[in-house]
Amino acid sequence: MGAGVRLAVVGATGAVGQEMLKVLEERNFAVKEIICLADPSEAGSKLKFNGETITVQSAGPEHFKKSDLALFAVGNDISKQLAGIAVENNCVVIDNSYAFRLQDDVPLVVPEVNPEDIDWHKGIIANPNCSTIIMVVAINPIYKAVGLKRVVVSTYQAVSGAGKAGLDELEKNSRDYLAGRESNPQVFQHPIAFNLIPHIDIFVDDDYTREEMKMVWETRKIMHAPDLKIAPTTVRGPVFRSHSD
Amino acid sequence: MGAGVRLAVVGATGAVGQEMLKVLEERNFAVKEIICLADPSEAGSKLKFNGETITVQSAGPEHFKKSDLALFAVGNDISKQLAGIAVENNCVVIDNSYAFRLQDDVPLVVPEVNPEDIDWHKGIIANPNCSTIIMVVAINPIYKAVGLKRVVVSTYQAVSGAGKAGLDELEKNSRDYLAGRESNPQVFQHPIAFNLIPHIDIFVDDDYTREEMKMVWETRKIMHAPDLKIAPTTVRGPVFRSHSD
Repeated sequence: MGAGVRLAVVGATGAVGQEMLKVLEERNFAVKEIICLADPSEAGSKLKFNGETITVQSAGPEHFKKSDLALFAVGNDISKQLAGIAVENNCVVIDNSYAFRLQDDVPLVVPEVNPEDIDWHKGIIANPNCSTIIMVVAINPIYKAVGLKRVVVSTYQAVSGAGKAGLDELEKNSRDYLAGRESNPQVFQHPIAFNLIPHIDIFVDDDYTREEMKMVWETRKIMHAPDLKIAPTTVRGPVFRSHSD
Repeated sequence: MGAGVRLAVVGATGAVGQEMLKVLEERNFAVKEIICLADPSEAGSKLKFNGETITVQSAGPEHFKKSDLALFAVGNDISKQLAGIAVENNCVVIDNSYAFRLQDDVPLVVPEVNPEDIDWHKGIIANPNCSTIIMVVAINPIYKAVGLKRVVVSTYQAVSGAGKAGLDELEKNSRDYLAGRESNPQVFQHPIAFNLIPHIDIFVDDDYTREEMKMVWETRKIMHAPDLKIAPTTVRGPVFRSHSD
Protein backbone atom coordinates (compact mmCIF):
# COMPACT_ATOMS: atom_id res chain seq x y z
CA MET A 1 0.00 0.00 0.00
CA GLY A 2 1.34 3.44 -0.88
CA ALA A 3 -0.18 6.85 -1.49
CA GLY A 4 -3.87 7.26 -0.83
CA VAL A 5 -6.33 7.41 2.04
CA ARG A 6 -6.20 5.68 5.38
CA LEU A 7 -9.36 3.62 5.21
CA ALA A 8 -11.52 1.82 7.78
CA VAL A 9 -14.18 -0.68 6.74
CA VAL A 10 -16.77 -1.16 9.48
CA GLY A 11 -18.63 -4.46 9.18
CA ALA A 12 -15.88 -5.90 6.99
CA THR A 13 -16.84 -9.53 7.65
CA GLY A 14 -20.48 -9.16 6.50
CA ALA A 15 -21.87 -9.79 3.01
CA VAL A 16 -21.75 -6.08 2.09
CA GLY A 17 -18.37 -5.46 3.76
CA GLN A 18 -16.84 -8.29 1.76
CA GLU A 19 -18.23 -6.83 -1.47
CA MET A 20 -16.78 -3.43 -0.53
CA LEU A 21 -13.31 -4.93 -0.15
CA LYS A 22 -13.70 -6.71 -3.48
CA VAL A 23 -14.75 -3.53 -5.29
CA LEU A 24 -11.93 -1.49 -3.69
CA GLU A 25 -9.49 -4.09 -5.05
CA GLU A 26 -11.07 -4.23 -8.51
CA ARG A 27 -10.95 -0.45 -8.86
CA ASN A 28 -7.40 -0.11 -7.51
CA PHE A 29 -8.78 2.40 -5.01
CA ALA A 30 -5.81 4.34 -3.62
CA VAL A 31 -5.49 2.97 -0.08
CA LYS A 32 -2.50 3.90 2.08
CA GLU A 33 -3.61 1.86 5.08
CA ILE A 34 -6.67 -0.28 5.67
CA ILE A 35 -8.29 -1.26 8.96
CA CYS A 36 -11.03 -3.89 8.99
CA LEU A 37 -13.48 -3.53 11.86
CA ALA A 38 -16.35 -5.70 12.98
CA ASP A 39 -18.34 -6.88 15.95
CA PRO A 40 -16.15 -7.93 18.94
CA SER A 41 -17.20 -11.56 18.28
CA GLU A 42 -15.43 -11.37 14.88
CA ALA A 43 -12.22 -9.75 16.18
CA GLY A 44 -9.13 -11.77 15.35
CA SER A 45 -10.52 -13.31 12.16
CA LYS A 46 -8.47 -12.80 9.00
CA LEU A 47 -9.40 -11.17 5.68
CA LYS A 48 -7.42 -10.83 2.45
CA PHE A 49 -7.02 -7.44 0.78
CA ASN A 50 -4.72 -6.84 -2.21
CA GLY A 51 -2.84 -10.01 -1.34
CA GLU A 52 -2.20 -9.01 2.26
CA THR A 53 -3.76 -10.61 5.32
CA ILE A 54 -5.68 -8.22 7.52
CA THR A 55 -6.68 -9.08 11.09
CA VAL A 56 -10.20 -7.94 11.94
CA GLN A 57 -10.44 -5.69 15.01
CA SER A 58 -13.26 -4.63 17.29
CA ALA A 59 -14.11 -1.00 16.44
CA GLY A 60 -12.93 1.74 18.85
CA PRO A 61 -12.19 5.52 18.74
CA GLU A 62 -8.47 4.89 18.19
CA HIS A 63 -9.16 3.27 14.81
CA PHE A 64 -11.05 6.29 13.51
CA LYS A 65 -8.28 8.62 14.75
CA LYS A 66 -5.93 6.79 12.38
CA SER A 67 -8.37 6.85 9.43
CA ASP A 68 -9.33 9.51 6.87
CA LEU A 69 -12.40 7.67 5.60
CA ALA A 70 -14.64 4.94 7.01
CA LEU A 71 -17.04 2.82 4.98
CA PHE A 72 -19.88 1.61 7.22
CA ALA A 73 -21.63 -1.64 6.25
CA VAL A 74 -23.52 -2.33 9.46
CA GLY A 75 -27.09 -2.00 10.76
CA ASN A 76 -28.76 1.27 11.81
CA ASP A 77 -28.00 0.83 15.51
CA ILE A 78 -24.27 0.23 15.11
CA SER A 79 -24.06 3.07 12.58
CA LYS A 80 -25.71 5.45 15.05
CA GLN A 81 -23.38 4.27 17.81
CA LEU A 82 -20.10 4.58 15.88
CA ALA A 83 -20.52 7.24 13.18
CA GLY A 84 -20.45 10.11 15.70
CA ILE A 85 -17.22 8.76 17.23
CA ALA A 86 -15.64 8.56 13.77
CA VAL A 87 -16.66 12.14 12.92
CA GLU A 88 -15.33 13.48 16.24
CA ASN A 89 -12.00 11.95 15.27
CA ASN A 90 -12.01 13.70 11.86
CA CYS A 91 -12.80 10.55 9.95
CA VAL A 92 -15.37 10.98 7.16
CA VAL A 93 -18.11 8.33 7.25
CA ILE A 94 -19.83 6.88 4.18
CA ASP A 95 -22.76 5.05 5.71
CA ASN A 96 -24.70 2.25 4.06
CA SER A 97 -27.47 2.04 6.68
CA TYR A 98 -30.79 3.85 6.90
CA ALA A 99 -29.72 5.74 10.08
CA PHE A 100 -28.77 9.12 8.58
CA ARG A 101 -30.28 9.11 5.09
CA LEU A 102 -33.10 11.55 5.76
CA GLN A 103 -31.20 13.83 8.18
CA ASP A 104 -31.12 17.38 6.75
CA ASP A 105 -27.41 17.86 7.49
CA VAL A 106 -26.39 14.59 5.80
CA PRO A 107 -26.09 14.45 2.02
CA LEU A 108 -27.60 11.34 0.40
CA VAL A 109 -25.52 10.71 -2.68
CA VAL A 110 -25.58 8.65 -5.85
CA PRO A 111 -22.43 9.62 -7.78
CA GLU A 112 -24.19 9.40 -11.16
CA VAL A 113 -26.99 11.73 -9.97
CA ASN A 114 -25.96 14.26 -7.32
CA PRO A 115 -22.15 14.14 -6.78
CA GLU A 116 -22.21 17.89 -5.94
CA ASP A 117 -24.05 17.16 -2.69
CA ILE A 118 -20.85 15.66 -1.29
CA ASP A 119 -19.50 19.21 -0.99
CA TRP A 120 -21.69 20.19 1.97
CA HIS A 121 -21.17 17.11 4.12
CA LYS A 122 -20.45 17.60 7.84
CA GLY A 123 -18.67 14.31 8.37
CA ILE A 124 -21.29 11.79 7.25
CA ILE A 125 -22.36 10.96 3.68
CA ALA A 126 -25.25 8.51 3.37
CA ASN A 127 -25.68 5.85 0.72
CA PRO A 128 -29.29 5.16 -0.37
CA ASN A 129 -31.40 2.04 -0.39
CA CYS A 130 -30.31 -0.42 -3.09
CA SER A 131 -33.56 -0.20 -5.10
CA THR A 132 -33.52 3.60 -4.93
CA ILE A 133 -29.98 3.77 -6.34
CA ILE A 134 -30.82 1.68 -9.39
CA MET A 135 -33.99 3.65 -10.05
CA VAL A 136 -32.57 7.16 -9.78
CA VAL A 137 -29.71 6.36 -12.16
CA ALA A 138 -32.39 5.48 -14.75
CA ILE A 139 -34.94 8.24 -14.11
CA ASN A 140 -32.81 11.27 -13.25
CA PRO A 141 -31.71 11.95 -16.85
CA ILE A 142 -35.35 11.75 -17.98
CA TYR A 143 -36.44 14.07 -15.16
CA LYS A 144 -33.74 16.59 -16.11
CA ALA A 145 -34.55 16.41 -19.82
CA VAL A 146 -38.35 16.49 -19.90
CA GLY A 147 -39.64 16.16 -16.33
CA LEU A 148 -41.63 13.30 -14.84
CA LYS A 149 -45.36 13.23 -14.12
CA ARG A 150 -45.26 10.14 -11.98
CA VAL A 151 -43.00 7.16 -11.33
CA VAL A 152 -44.55 3.69 -11.09
CA VAL A 153 -41.98 1.21 -9.83
CA SER A 154 -42.15 -2.46 -8.88
CA THR A 155 -39.19 -4.29 -7.39
CA TYR A 156 -38.41 -7.96 -7.33
CA GLN A 157 -35.61 -8.15 -4.73
CA ALA A 158 -33.05 -10.86 -4.10
CA VAL A 159 -32.59 -12.46 -0.68
CA SER A 160 -29.02 -11.14 -0.54
CA GLY A 161 -30.62 -7.90 0.67
CA ALA A 162 -31.17 -9.78 3.94
CA GLY A 163 -27.47 -10.69 4.11
CA LYS A 164 -25.83 -14.10 4.34
CA ALA A 165 -28.65 -15.41 6.56
CA GLY A 166 -31.12 -14.64 3.75
CA LEU A 167 -29.02 -16.52 1.18
CA ASP A 168 -28.73 -19.53 3.49
CA GLU A 169 -32.45 -19.57 4.24
CA LEU A 170 -33.42 -19.56 0.55
CA GLU A 171 -31.08 -22.48 -0.15
CA LYS A 172 -32.26 -24.50 2.84
CA ASN A 173 -35.96 -23.77 2.25
CA SER A 174 -35.64 -24.72 -1.43
CA ARG A 175 -33.85 -28.02 -0.75
CA ASP A 176 -36.43 -28.86 1.93
CA TYR A 177 -39.36 -28.03 -0.35
CA LEU A 178 -38.06 -30.16 -3.23
CA ALA A 179 -37.45 -33.04 -0.81
CA GLY A 180 -40.99 -32.71 0.56
CA ARG A 181 -39.75 -31.57 3.98
CA GLU A 182 -41.30 -28.79 6.10
CA SER A 183 -39.09 -25.73 6.45
CA ASN A 184 -39.95 -22.89 8.81
CA PRO A 185 -38.94 -19.32 8.04
CA GLN A 186 -36.46 -17.64 10.41
CA VAL A 187 -35.19 -14.64 8.45
CA PHE A 188 -38.27 -13.88 6.34
CA GLN A 189 -41.90 -13.49 7.44
CA HIS A 190 -43.00 -16.47 5.32
CA PRO A 191 -41.26 -19.38 3.59
CA ILE A 192 -39.28 -17.77 0.76
CA ALA A 193 -38.71 -20.88 -1.38
CA PHE A 194 -40.99 -20.85 -4.45
CA ASN A 195 -42.81 -17.86 -3.01
CA LEU A 196 -42.87 -14.06 -3.23
CA ILE A 197 -43.33 -11.86 -0.16
CA PRO A 198 -44.71 -8.32 -0.64
CA HIS A 199 -43.27 -7.23 2.69
CA ILE A 200 -39.71 -5.88 3.11
CA ASP A 201 -38.77 -3.97 6.28
CA ILE A 202 -41.71 -2.86 8.48
CA PHE A 203 -45.11 -1.44 7.60
CA VAL A 204 -45.41 2.30 8.14
CA ASP A 205 -48.43 4.47 8.88
CA ASP A 206 -49.75 4.74 5.33
CA ASP A 207 -49.80 0.92 4.92
CA TYR A 208 -46.85 0.99 2.54
CA THR A 209 -43.74 -0.80 3.79
CA ARG A 210 -40.74 1.30 4.83
CA GLU A 211 -38.82 -0.29 1.95
CA GLU A 212 -41.42 1.23 -0.38
CA MET A 213 -41.39 4.60 1.34
CA LYS A 214 -37.59 4.69 1.18
CA MET A 215 -37.97 4.75 -2.60
CA VAL A 216 -40.22 7.80 -2.23
CA TRP A 217 -38.37 9.73 0.50
CA GLU A 218 -34.84 9.00 -0.69
CA THR A 219 -35.52 9.60 -4.38
CA ARG A 220 -37.04 13.02 -3.64
CA LYS A 221 -33.98 13.98 -1.58
CA ILE A 222 -31.37 12.69 -4.05
CA MET A 223 -33.05 14.25 -7.10
CA HIS A 224 -34.02 17.47 -5.27
CA ALA A 225 -37.58 16.79 -6.38
CA PRO A 226 -39.66 17.12 -3.19
CA ASP A 227 -43.00 16.80 -4.98
CA LEU A 228 -42.20 13.94 -7.34
CA LYS A 229 -45.06 11.40 -7.37
CA ILE A 230 -43.84 7.83 -6.87
CA ALA A 231 -45.96 4.68 -6.58
CA PRO A 232 -43.69 1.86 -5.34
CA THR A 233 -44.33 -1.84 -4.77
CA THR A 234 -41.41 -3.75 -3.27
CA VAL A 235 -41.41 -7.53 -3.14
CA ARG A 236 -38.89 -10.10 -1.92
CA GLY A 237 -38.40 -13.01 -4.32
CA PRO A 238 -36.68 -16.40 -4.22
CA VAL A 239 -33.60 -15.12 -6.05
CA PHE A 240 -30.11 -15.40 -4.56
CA ARG A 241 -28.47 -12.26 -5.93
CA SER A 242 -29.55 -9.49 -8.25
CA HIS A 243 -27.16 -8.11 -10.82
CA SER A 244 -26.91 -4.95 -8.76
CA ASP A 245 -25.48 -6.72 -5.72
CA MET B 1 -75.88 -38.09 -13.32
CA GLY B 2 -79.44 -36.78 -13.39
CA ALA B 3 -81.05 -33.42 -14.11
CA GLY B 4 -78.85 -30.64 -15.43
CA VAL B 5 -76.93 -29.66 -18.53
CA ARG B 6 -75.24 -31.86 -21.09
CA LEU B 7 -71.66 -30.66 -20.76
CA ALA B 8 -68.54 -30.94 -22.92
CA VAL B 9 -65.09 -30.12 -21.52
CA VAL B 10 -62.66 -29.36 -24.34
CA GLY B 11 -59.02 -29.81 -23.29
CA ALA B 12 -60.09 -32.01 -20.37
CA THR B 13 -56.66 -33.64 -19.97
CA GLY B 14 -54.72 -30.35 -19.56
CA ALA B 15 -53.84 -28.58 -16.31
CA VAL B 16 -56.83 -26.19 -16.60
CA GLY B 17 -59.24 -28.86 -17.85
CA GLN B 18 -58.43 -31.04 -14.85
CA GLU B 19 -59.10 -28.10 -12.51
CA MET B 20 -62.42 -27.47 -14.25
CA LEU B 21 -63.53 -31.05 -13.60
CA LYS B 22 -62.43 -30.74 -9.97
CA VAL B 23 -64.38 -27.51 -9.44
CA LEU B 24 -67.50 -28.91 -11.17
CA GLU B 25 -67.37 -31.82 -8.70
CA GLU B 26 -66.73 -29.62 -5.67
CA ARG B 27 -69.68 -27.38 -6.51
CA ASN B 28 -72.05 -30.22 -7.35
CA PHE B 29 -72.65 -28.54 -10.70
CA ALA B 30 -75.82 -30.04 -12.16
CA VAL B 31 -74.50 -32.20 -15.01
CA LYS B 32 -76.83 -34.57 -16.88
CA GLU B 33 -74.13 -35.91 -19.20
CA ILE B 34 -70.46 -35.08 -19.53
CA ILE B 35 -68.19 -35.53 -22.55
CA CYS B 36 -64.43 -35.07 -22.14
CA LEU B 37 -62.68 -33.96 -25.31
CA ALA B 38 -59.03 -33.46 -26.10
CA ASP B 39 -56.41 -33.62 -28.80
CA PRO B 40 -56.63 -36.82 -30.94
CA SER B 41 -53.36 -37.98 -29.33
CA GLU B 42 -55.14 -38.10 -25.95
CA ALA B 43 -58.26 -39.92 -27.20
CA GLY B 44 -58.90 -43.13 -25.30
CA SER B 45 -57.32 -41.98 -22.05
CA LYS B 46 -59.51 -42.20 -18.94
CA LEU B 47 -60.60 -39.50 -16.49
CA LYS B 48 -62.62 -39.73 -13.28
CA PHE B 49 -65.65 -37.49 -12.72
CA ASN B 50 -68.01 -37.89 -9.77
CA GLY B 51 -66.76 -41.43 -9.29
CA GLU B 52 -67.41 -42.47 -12.90
CA THR B 53 -64.74 -43.24 -15.47
CA ILE B 54 -64.94 -41.10 -18.59
CA THR B 55 -63.14 -42.02 -21.81
CA VAL B 56 -61.55 -39.01 -23.50
CA GLN B 57 -62.61 -38.49 -27.11
CA SER B 58 -61.22 -36.51 -30.01
CA ALA B 59 -63.46 -33.46 -30.51
CA GLY B 60 -65.91 -33.49 -33.46
CA PRO B 61 -69.21 -31.77 -34.43
CA GLU B 62 -71.28 -34.73 -33.18
CA HIS B 63 -70.11 -34.08 -29.59
CA PHE B 64 -71.31 -30.50 -29.64
CA LYS B 65 -74.67 -31.57 -31.12
CA LYS B 66 -75.19 -33.64 -27.97
CA SER B 67 -74.08 -30.85 -25.57
CA ASP B 68 -75.81 -27.75 -24.18
CA LEU B 69 -72.63 -26.15 -22.88
CA ALA B 70 -68.93 -26.55 -23.66
CA LEU B 71 -66.09 -25.36 -21.44
CA PHE B 72 -63.01 -24.70 -23.58
CA ALA B 73 -59.60 -24.99 -21.91
CA VAL B 74 -57.38 -25.02 -24.99
CA GLY B 75 -55.10 -22.58 -26.84
CA ASN B 76 -56.28 -19.77 -29.11
CA ASP B 77 -55.91 -21.78 -32.32
CA ILE B 78 -57.97 -24.77 -31.20
CA SER B 79 -60.60 -22.45 -29.71
CA LYS B 80 -60.92 -20.60 -33.02
CA GLN B 81 -61.16 -23.90 -34.87
CA LEU B 82 -63.81 -25.55 -32.68
CA ALA B 83 -65.90 -22.80 -31.06
CA GLY B 84 -67.71 -21.97 -34.30
CA ILE B 85 -68.60 -25.65 -34.84
CA ALA B 86 -69.98 -25.83 -31.29
CA VAL B 87 -72.10 -22.70 -31.79
CA GLU B 88 -73.48 -23.96 -35.12
CA ASN B 89 -74.65 -27.02 -33.22
CA ASN B 90 -76.46 -24.91 -30.60
CA CYS B 91 -73.88 -25.55 -27.93
CA VAL B 92 -72.93 -22.50 -25.85
CA VAL B 93 -69.16 -22.05 -25.49
CA ILE B 94 -67.41 -20.64 -22.41
CA ASP B 95 -63.90 -20.04 -23.71
CA ASN B 96 -60.80 -19.72 -21.55
CA SER B 97 -58.46 -18.63 -24.36
CA TYR B 98 -57.62 -15.18 -25.65
CA ALA B 99 -59.24 -15.87 -29.05
CA PHE B 100 -62.59 -14.10 -28.57
CA ARG B 101 -62.10 -11.88 -25.53
CA LEU B 102 -61.97 -8.56 -27.37
CA GLN B 103 -64.55 -9.39 -30.05
CA ASP B 104 -67.45 -6.92 -29.84
CA ASP B 105 -70.11 -9.60 -30.14
CA VAL B 106 -68.61 -11.76 -27.38
CA PRO B 107 -69.26 -10.86 -23.73
CA LEU B 108 -66.20 -11.05 -21.46
CA VAL B 109 -67.55 -11.98 -18.07
CA VAL B 110 -66.45 -12.15 -14.45
CA PRO B 111 -69.51 -13.30 -12.48
CA GLU B 112 -68.70 -11.03 -9.50
CA VAL B 113 -68.42 -7.97 -11.77
CA ASN B 114 -70.59 -8.09 -14.91
CA PRO B 115 -72.90 -11.14 -14.81
CA GLU B 116 -75.51 -9.17 -16.79
CA ASP B 117 -73.30 -9.27 -19.89
CA ILE B 118 -74.05 -12.98 -20.24
CA ASP B 119 -77.55 -11.98 -21.45
CA TRP B 120 -76.40 -10.71 -24.85
CA HIS B 121 -74.13 -13.61 -25.81
CA LYS B 122 -74.43 -15.03 -29.33
CA GLY B 123 -73.07 -18.47 -28.52
CA ILE B 124 -69.65 -17.65 -27.07
CA ILE B 125 -68.86 -16.22 -23.63
CA ALA B 126 -65.20 -15.42 -22.99
CA ASN B 127 -63.34 -15.83 -19.72
CA PRO B 128 -60.63 -13.20 -19.03
CA ASN B 129 -56.92 -13.46 -18.34
CA CYS B 130 -56.21 -14.86 -14.87
CA SER B 131 -54.54 -11.68 -13.54
CA THR B 132 -57.37 -9.54 -14.90
CA ILE B 133 -60.01 -11.61 -13.10
CA ILE B 134 -58.35 -11.24 -9.70
CA MET B 135 -57.85 -7.52 -10.19
CA VAL B 136 -61.35 -6.59 -11.35
CA VAL B 137 -62.97 -8.42 -8.42
CA ALA B 138 -60.96 -6.12 -6.14
CA ILE B 139 -61.23 -2.81 -7.98
CA ASN B 140 -64.75 -2.88 -9.44
CA PRO B 141 -66.52 -2.14 -6.11
CA ILE B 142 -64.15 0.81 -5.55
CA TYR B 143 -64.75 2.07 -9.09
CA LYS B 144 -68.52 1.87 -8.60
CA ALA B 145 -68.42 3.56 -5.19
CA VAL B 146 -65.99 6.44 -5.71
CA GLY B 147 -64.37 6.06 -9.14
CA LEU B 148 -60.72 5.37 -9.91
CA LYS B 149 -58.13 7.88 -11.12
CA ARG B 150 -55.60 5.30 -12.15
CA VAL B 151 -54.76 1.66 -11.47
CA VAL B 152 -51.14 0.69 -10.82
CA VAL B 153 -50.78 -3.08 -10.81
CA SER B 154 -47.81 -5.43 -10.56
CA THR B 155 -48.16 -9.18 -10.93
CA TYR B 156 -45.93 -11.94 -9.71
CA GLN B 157 -47.22 -14.97 -11.66
CA ALA B 158 -46.79 -18.67 -11.01
CA VAL B 159 -45.39 -21.04 -13.66
CA SER B 160 -48.69 -22.95 -13.66
CA GLY B 161 -49.86 -20.23 -16.06
CA ALA B 162 -47.65 -21.99 -18.61
CA GLY B 163 -49.36 -25.32 -17.93
CA LYS B 164 -47.85 -28.62 -16.83
CA ALA B 165 -44.70 -27.98 -18.91
CA GLY B 166 -44.08 -24.81 -16.89
CA LEU B 167 -44.44 -26.66 -13.58
CA ASP B 168 -42.04 -29.39 -14.74
CA GLU B 169 -39.47 -26.87 -15.98
CA LEU B 170 -39.39 -24.98 -12.67
CA GLU B 171 -38.86 -28.22 -10.74
CA LYS B 172 -36.12 -29.49 -13.09
CA ASN B 173 -34.34 -26.11 -13.30
CA SER B 174 -34.39 -25.75 -9.51
CA ARG B 175 -33.01 -29.22 -8.84
CA ASP B 176 -30.30 -28.66 -11.47
CA TYR B 177 -29.35 -25.27 -10.02
CA LEU B 178 -29.05 -26.59 -6.46
CA ALA B 179 -26.94 -29.50 -7.72
CA GLY B 180 -24.67 -27.10 -9.64
CA ARG B 181 -25.82 -28.44 -13.02
CA GLU B 182 -26.56 -26.32 -16.11
CA SER B 183 -30.24 -26.26 -17.09
CA ASN B 184 -31.43 -24.73 -20.33
CA PRO B 185 -34.86 -23.13 -20.59
CA GLN B 186 -37.38 -24.72 -22.97
CA VAL B 187 -40.73 -23.28 -21.90
CA PHE B 188 -39.59 -19.87 -20.62
CA GLN B 189 -37.35 -17.28 -22.31
CA HIS B 190 -34.74 -17.56 -19.54
CA PRO B 191 -33.95 -20.02 -16.75
CA ILE B 192 -36.87 -19.65 -14.31
CA ALA B 193 -35.24 -21.22 -11.23
CA PHE B 194 -34.24 -18.54 -8.69
CA ASN B 195 -35.08 -15.88 -11.26
CA LEU B 196 -37.89 -13.53 -12.27
CA ILE B 197 -38.77 -12.86 -15.91
CA PRO B 198 -40.59 -9.60 -16.80
CA HIS B 199 -41.83 -11.09 -20.04
CA ILE B 200 -45.08 -13.07 -20.33
CA ASP B 201 -46.67 -13.65 -23.77
CA ILE B 202 -45.24 -11.52 -26.62
CA PHE B 203 -44.21 -7.87 -26.75
CA VAL B 204 -46.72 -5.61 -28.51
CA ASP B 205 -46.28 -2.32 -30.33
CA ASP B 206 -46.12 -0.05 -27.29
CA ASP B 207 -43.30 -2.15 -25.70
CA TYR B 208 -45.62 -3.54 -23.07
CA THR B 209 -46.15 -7.30 -23.19
CA ARG B 210 -49.49 -8.63 -24.38
CA GLU B 211 -49.99 -10.08 -20.88
CA GLU B 212 -49.78 -6.51 -19.59
CA MET B 213 -52.05 -5.09 -22.26
CA LYS B 214 -54.63 -7.82 -21.57
CA MET B 215 -54.98 -6.28 -18.11
CA VAL B 216 -55.71 -2.94 -19.77
CA TRP B 217 -57.96 -4.05 -22.64
CA GLU B 218 -59.90 -6.72 -20.77
CA THR B 219 -60.44 -4.67 -17.61
CA ARG B 220 -61.89 -1.78 -19.62
CA LYS B 221 -64.28 -4.14 -21.40
CA ILE B 222 -65.41 -6.04 -18.28
CA MET B 223 -65.92 -2.90 -16.18
CA HIS B 224 -67.41 -0.88 -19.06
CA ALA B 225 -64.73 1.73 -18.34
CA PRO B 226 -63.16 2.44 -21.75
CA ASP B 227 -60.99 5.31 -20.47
CA LEU B 228 -59.72 3.78 -17.22
CA LYS B 229 -55.98 4.41 -16.84
CA ILE B 230 -54.07 1.25 -15.97
CA ALA B 231 -50.28 0.87 -15.57
CA PRO B 232 -49.50 -2.86 -15.49
CA THR B 233 -46.24 -4.75 -14.95
CA THR B 234 -46.51 -8.53 -15.30
CA VAL B 235 -43.67 -10.80 -14.21
CA ARG B 236 -43.22 -14.56 -14.14
CA GLY B 237 -41.73 -15.88 -10.92
CA PRO B 238 -40.32 -19.20 -9.68
CA VAL B 239 -43.55 -20.15 -7.92
CA PHE B 240 -45.41 -23.38 -8.71
CA ARG B 241 -49.02 -22.32 -8.18
CA SER B 242 -50.71 -19.14 -7.05
CA HIS B 243 -53.70 -19.30 -4.76
CA SER B 244 -55.87 -18.27 -7.68
CA ASP B 245 -55.02 -21.36 -9.73
